[in-house]
Amino acid sequence: MNENIINELKKIVGEDWVVTKKEVLQGYLLDETAEPVRPKPTEDVVVVKPKSAQEIAEILKLANREKIPVFTRGGGTGLVGGCIPTQSSIVISMERMDKIEVDKENLMAVAEAGVTLGTLIEKAEEAGLFFPAHPGDEGAHIGGLVACNAGGARAVKTGVMRNYVVGLEVVTPTGEILNIGGKLIKNNTSKLLHLFIGTEGILGIITKAIIRLSPQYKATATMVVPFKDRHTAVKTAPKILQSGIIPLGLEYVEKELIETSAKHLGMEWPCKEGNAFLIVILAEFDEETVYSELEKISEICTKNGSLEPLLAETSEEQNKILKIRSEIYIALKPNTIDILDIVVPISKVGEFMDEMDRLAKKYDTYIPAYGHIGDGNLHPHVMRKEGWTMEQYKELKKEIYNAAKKLGGTLTGEHGIGAIRLENLRAFLSDEEIELMRKIKKIFDPNNILNPGRVIL
Amino acid sequence: MNENIINELKKIVGEDWVVTKKEVLQGYLLDETAEPVRPKPTEDVVVVKPKSAQEIAEILKLANREKIPVFTRGGGTGLVGGCIPTQSSIVISMERMDKIEVDKENLMAVAEAGVTLGTLIEKAEEAGLFFPAHPGDEGAHIGGLVACNAGGARAVKTGVMRNYVVGLEVVTPTGEILNIGGKLIKNNTSKLLHLFIGTEGILGIITKAIIRLSPQYKATATMVVPFKDRHTAVKTAPKILQSGIIPLGLEYVEKELIETSAKHLGMEWPCKEGNAFLIVILAEFDEETVYSELEKISEICTKNGSLEPLLAETSEEQNKILKIRSEIYIALKPNTIDILDIVVPISKVGEFMDEMDRLAKKYDTYIPAYGHIGDGNLHPHVMRKEGWTMEQYKELKKEIYNAAKKLGGTLTGEHGIGAIRLENLRAFLSDEEIELMRKIKKIFDPNNILNPGRVIL
Repeated sequence: MNENIINELKKIVGEDWVVTKKEVLQGYLLDETAEPVRPKPTEDVVVVKPKSAQEIAEILKLANREKIPVFTRGGGTGLVGGCIPTQSSIVISMERMDKIEVDKENLMAVAEAGVTLGTLIEKAEEAGLFFPAHPGDEGAHIGGLVACNAGGARAVKTGVMRNYVVGLEVVTPTGEILNIGGKLIKNNTSKLLHLFIGTEGILGIITKAIIRLSPQYKATATMVVPFKDRHTAVKTAPKILQSGIIPLGLEYVEKELIETSAKHLGMEWPCKEGNAFLIVILAEFDEETVYSELEKISEICTKNGSLEPLLAETSEEQNKILKIRSEIYIALKPNTIDILDIVVPISKVGEFMDEMDRLAKKYDTYIPAYGHIGDGNLHPHVMRKEGWTMEQYKELKKEIYNAAKKLGGTLTGEHGIGAIRLENLRAFLSDEEIELMRKIKKIFDPNNILNPGRVIL
Repeated sequence: MNENIINELKKIVGEDWVVTKKEVLQGYLLDETAEPVRPKPTEDVVVVKPKSAQEIAEILKLANREKIPVFTRGGGTGLVGGCIPTQSSIVISMERMDKIEVDKENLMAVAEAGVTLGTLIEKAEEAGLFFPAHPGDEGAHIGGLVACNAGGARAVKTGVMRNYVVGLEVVTPTGEILNIGGKLIKNNTSKLLHLFIGTEGILGIITKAIIRLSPQYKATATMVVPFKDRHTAVKTAPKILQSGIIPLGLEYVEKELIETSAKHLGMEWPCKEGNAFLIVILAEFDEETVYSELEKISEICTKNGSLEPLLAETSEEQNKILKIRSEIYIALKPNTIDILDIVVPISKVGEFMDEMDRLAKKYDTYIPAYGHIGDGNLHPHVMRKEGWTMEQYKELKKEIYNAAKKLGGTLTGEHGIGAIRLENLRAFLSDEEIELMRKIKKIFDPNNILNPGRVIL
């Protein structure tokens, strides 16, 4: 990177907050994307750590004038390479923008973009309130979660990030600071708020968000319902949702996979019987409601052919089940080529899983069947295969996407497009839609400096 | 309107579905906007009634070629003159696009734009499901509700239209048919879906929507909580919301107004004591939950200084209370100049009402204090005053908007901008935001044919 640019950046944010040392830069060149598909970063970057929207506006004005690409970096927890600098560029790290205020009376938090999900959860709880969604890793930044419209396992009950955002401060690529929305539950004045949510930072850098909070749940419970086979389990999930109970989480796992995960932790999966399991997590504002829901769900499941449901009575037992479930990701990770983010209509989950089995067989690999069955969002982990080329994997991936598309599904439920889903996007969007999006990008970012090579073909 | 154009339109939709007779046209020249502020329509219009997105695409291609303005008309229940043809134009009435299918397994409805809210509610219930929001008049069309991101009195619990839309079919002003989204609960593939929600039809004509449904509530209750004065009542509302109970509706009314409304119906308001009232409407999936919520709310209210709450035990009593509440609109209408759609942070509702009283005194008129206190959305009805000019009303309106703005509020919570809120928009949006919106409009609608004079300054 040009010395003059580095000096101008130092003038904007202060000498201490401009990083050019190779060893320090390394930590800013990657994210959580599976290594085999992760984009290769360039090392010709300068990392800046601004403290305010004004400083970011100055940086963007400079970058826009000099036509230098800019990549915005939040918590680095993304799974699609969105924040990886693949061109000689300025990397803006949001880590110093970490102020948060909770407004108890209005049940809202005002968080700078660099506040972590963990901090939001903590600060809400300190005020006797609660952030209901759990849209990913607790190290994720609010700015990234909003930009990517992150989802999470609780979306069936709590919705996704979009449902919580009522206001944004955004810096456009030309360096204008926009303040949109407010501490308002209904608002039809500004028409731009939702355009910044889910567009993965290509239209502007989110610097602050106003987030709705809720009261705290007072009672939770977890139940594992075993079934003899996949289809009996999968067909029971919509029956639970139709009953009027909306679980905080409704997950699906199969015996082989969940036992692998338990073994990985040195633990034991508590269900001896059954090959397919629904994990039902309940959370309500009082214990009576949770008990009555447990009873109803148990009744619905056994009526639809389940084996005896297992109720986790103590919080220790609950944590054990959830720990084994969440360890799947860790247990599979070393041998994973790619973690997909398919979503299909909930009525089609079983069919999609069968199709994955067929494709796994065809390609002689293993694609474990599990996911957020409550919202139809599945994360097929495609496992490494000795001697495979990336081209062979790409063929399999294309078949997986075709299967999803045939069932009315799509290629990203919650992770976003980022860098690595672009090549398959054309199968899911019409030329007209892509063209409109391209033109919108051009309005906001005439020199295409912000997150180039992301989201837009 | 030019004969050739009329003939071309007849070729597209069929002779029977093109209206040019003056008497029949009258019904297409107005909406529910209060008469004194309602835009004056032109009579130089032709009304067409297409049956499909393809026909609409043909009409828009024609209009775009000939640069003829087009106004889209749904149920005509809007309150801001959005659908009133104020220029020589083609009026597209969506009344024949009224097909609806309910997909029980996926808890979704696929509705053409001309399906009424009443039909959506009815069809959902026939399938054992439920459309939770109640975003306005039951004669409103789905297309209009989505385009305007309609809200309603239940938004505090159920959210607004945006929260239910997972897919759209839209015809752009240049005649392209877009299909966006699907029967998917999570979807981060298309970035355009939410741009069509709430932009009031200026970017395209919504022809179909995929709408999420819920299970039916099984138990409801209504409680009226009287307070000696406004501020004790208003301060109690957030306490209820913080407790973990989310009422289906949380309304605020004052004695004089609610007794006027009751009188209008020949009924009697059941609370003898109190000057300010919270009306709490509860709906849950079982009776036990409703009972326990009633108890808790009663406790919270009396602890915060209420008088004895009145529980409507029978559905007859419930209906009576809700009828008197909803009759306010009818009782005030003949003498109303304008119904505003202010929203402020819920913590500021009391202050805003005091400011309305002060302004009513200053302008020697009456602005009754009532509204959806649960979401901070108030509808100040400004009452007619003998001898007032519209200029004098506009001054008062400006002061009301200034008061809202000072408190962090905005000029439309749920009704939208339409034609009549445009003149005050600049006080609430920055020049940059307006300019971006103008450029986006230009991308979709290069000849500015669709709903000209709406939403955008």
